[in-house]
Amino acid sequence: MQKHGKQTWVFSTPPKLIDGAAVAGPDEGKGPLAHDFDLLYADLWAGEKSFELAEKKMMQDACDTVLKRNQDKPIDFFIAGDLLDQIISSSFTARELQVPYLGIFGACSTSMLGLALAAFLVDSGAAKYALAATSSHNNTAEKQFRYPNEYGAQKPPESQYTVSAAGAGLVAASGSGPRITGATMGKIVDMGISDPNNMGAAMAPAAADTIYQHFQDLQLTPDAYDLIITGDLGQVGHEITKELLQQKGIVLNDQQFVDCGLLIYDRETQPVFSGGSGCGCCASVLYGHFLKRLQRRELKKILVVATGALMSPLSYQQKETIPAIAHGVVLEG
Amino acid sequence: MQKHGKQTWVFSTPPKLIDGAAVAGPDEGKGPLAHDFDLLYADLWAGEKSFELAEKKMMQDACDTVLKRNQDKPIDFFIAGDLLDQIISSSFTARELQVPYLGIFGACSTSMLGLALAAFLVDSGAAKYALAATSSHNNTAEKQFRYPNEYGAQKPPESQYTVSAAGAGLVAASGSGPRITGATMGKIVDMGISDPNNMGAAMAPAAADTIYQHFQDLQLTPDAYDLIITGDLGQVGHEITKELLQQKGIVLNDQQFVDCGLLIYDRETQPVFSGGSGCGCCASVLYGHFLKRLQRRELKKILVVATGALMSPLSYQQKETIPAIAHGVVLEG
Repeated sequence: MQKHGKQTWVFSTPPKLIDGAAVAGPDEGKGPLAHDFDLLYADLWAGEKSFELAEKKMMQDACDTVLKRNQDKPIDFFIAGDLLDQIISSSFTARELQVPYLGIFGACSTSMLGLALAAFLVDSGAAKYALAATSSHNNTAEKQFRYPNEYGAQKPPESQYTVSAAGAGLVAASGSGPRITGATMGKIVDMGISDPNNMGAAMAPAAADTIYQHFQDLQLTPDAYDLIITGDLGQVGHEITKELLQQKGIVLNDQQFVDCGLLIYDRETQPVFSGGSGCGCCASVLYGHFLKRLQRRELKKILVVATGALMSPLSYQQKETIPAIAHGVVLEG
Repeated sequence: MQKHGKQTWVFSTPPKLIDGAAVAGPDEGKGPLAHDFDLLYADLWAGEKSFELAEKKMMQDACDTVLKRNQDKPIDFFIAGDLLDQIISSSFTARELQVPYLGIFGACSTSMLGLALAAFLVDSGAAKYALAATSSHNNTAEKQFRYPNEYGAQKPPESQYTVSAAGAGLVAASGSGPRITGATMGKIVDMGISDPNNMGAAMAPAAADTIYQHFQDLQLTPDAYDLIITGDLGQVGHEITKELLQQKGIVLNDQQFVDCGLLIYDRETQPVFSGGSGCGCCASVLYGHFLKRLQRRELKKILVVATGALMSPLSYQQKETIPAIAHGVVLEG
């Protein structure tokens, strides 16, 4: 482990992402990445009696899918977080797994915070196998962060649609799979946006900050990567990020710079406003879609930057602005 | 870094806890540890216009106190979490600090989860200086987890009183202060208790599990430690933990086995039921009281085990039991 520049870890013995699983709900199952998910649910209940239990089941199913395929590999640590108050989806999943558990919270940046920490544990010798997971669920998030689902409240076009999905990634010291070579850990960026219906705009400056810092810390230019992937900025946030980076001299084109929140749905036929959001968005697209493309060697090197809007319903009611953060992880095929 | 047994890290180049600060509210200022705090507030508003802003101010003040005394030491990472939904006390403090931020959640185990991760980052070379912090506030916790403060709801004698306090610890690769030599990371233990007014009993089996595992992993007996300190079990939980450990052959006496939730108040004169609780309890007692005793060489080696009850108000309403966890850190003078 070496620290480069201000915010970037470079792993000395790069851990491998040896497996990953993604599970998703019915809307995601109608989107363009449907075939990449390990499991699709017919409805948002997932056979449970509350949406919260359904979200927990999704995270559990993602973890179980990975664990069943890797029964010979005992997990040393489970690192997880989610959007629900007191990260209950994660803690109740951890109750089933019965391994040491590190609870984390970074809102929608949680996926890469978890993957970075898992790689960190493995690189340092503290774990042979670490499992990182996160989840989100449209109905649990809507009712907690916005309005009761039954209201059917209207939304502005810049709002985003919370993805119902979970993803889990298994990091190991050795094995086959892409190497996790580095991570850039974000700091809070808050440009004064207070509208929780415009999270893309709130998170964009944090995404730009972490991507810029990544290139600074490693003295790289964007051509080092096949893809630079953001988590869930949506159309509005993605465009702002591109512009902010351009102002700093980093020019990304639409082929190279993509967003999981834009990839997971077909915005022409699905009513998802500016795109998908939620912890499960980046996690399910990485562990479901991009991991396969890395395994097939279609992609050699990617930077995945998950962004989080760290407000709470209470901080919004108290008229606070939204502190945003972004954490990035480098994967090499 | 080496992993010993199932759950314990032993740091190869033990980082130092070079400084710590604790701030606390008026009730804590009337307790037996009043003189150990760096700053006491006259009321629970701490000069702010909401209790949430007051809690954030407490965490900020604890961090600022440490940072002012260590201006020559640039912080690489801030690791923090708290009880409030979406850990807003921590994220809004991170917004001020403007350094890379890792958000964590372990309810009242957060203090030792953060200190263990800070030591981990420094031991591995990922950081020269890492700051770990947490906080709790009686009125923010009561209104979020139980009843509106104005109800004046009655409480059963086994309930606990949320500490209004914050603590911050500065971990460094070198410098003077106790060494952080190891950490035992807990797994979830849930013995079926669902009453959030009896958290001590819910957390006791997790505390016993981590303490037992710590001795197993390191092949130690209790006489290796001057003190074994739990975070906020209170009278009820502390007694259950002692009994559970006794059943496993680990006998601790009352001089050696203490609880921050019992130390911070005078239970004879203060109406705190079974004792103190909250993230800020263990953090303020460690960084305020025990750190000074280690610095004065009154104590040579301590094990600090912070316990967390990982339920949410929603999981309780949905009749879930309480998943509990405990993380332990070893400090040597």
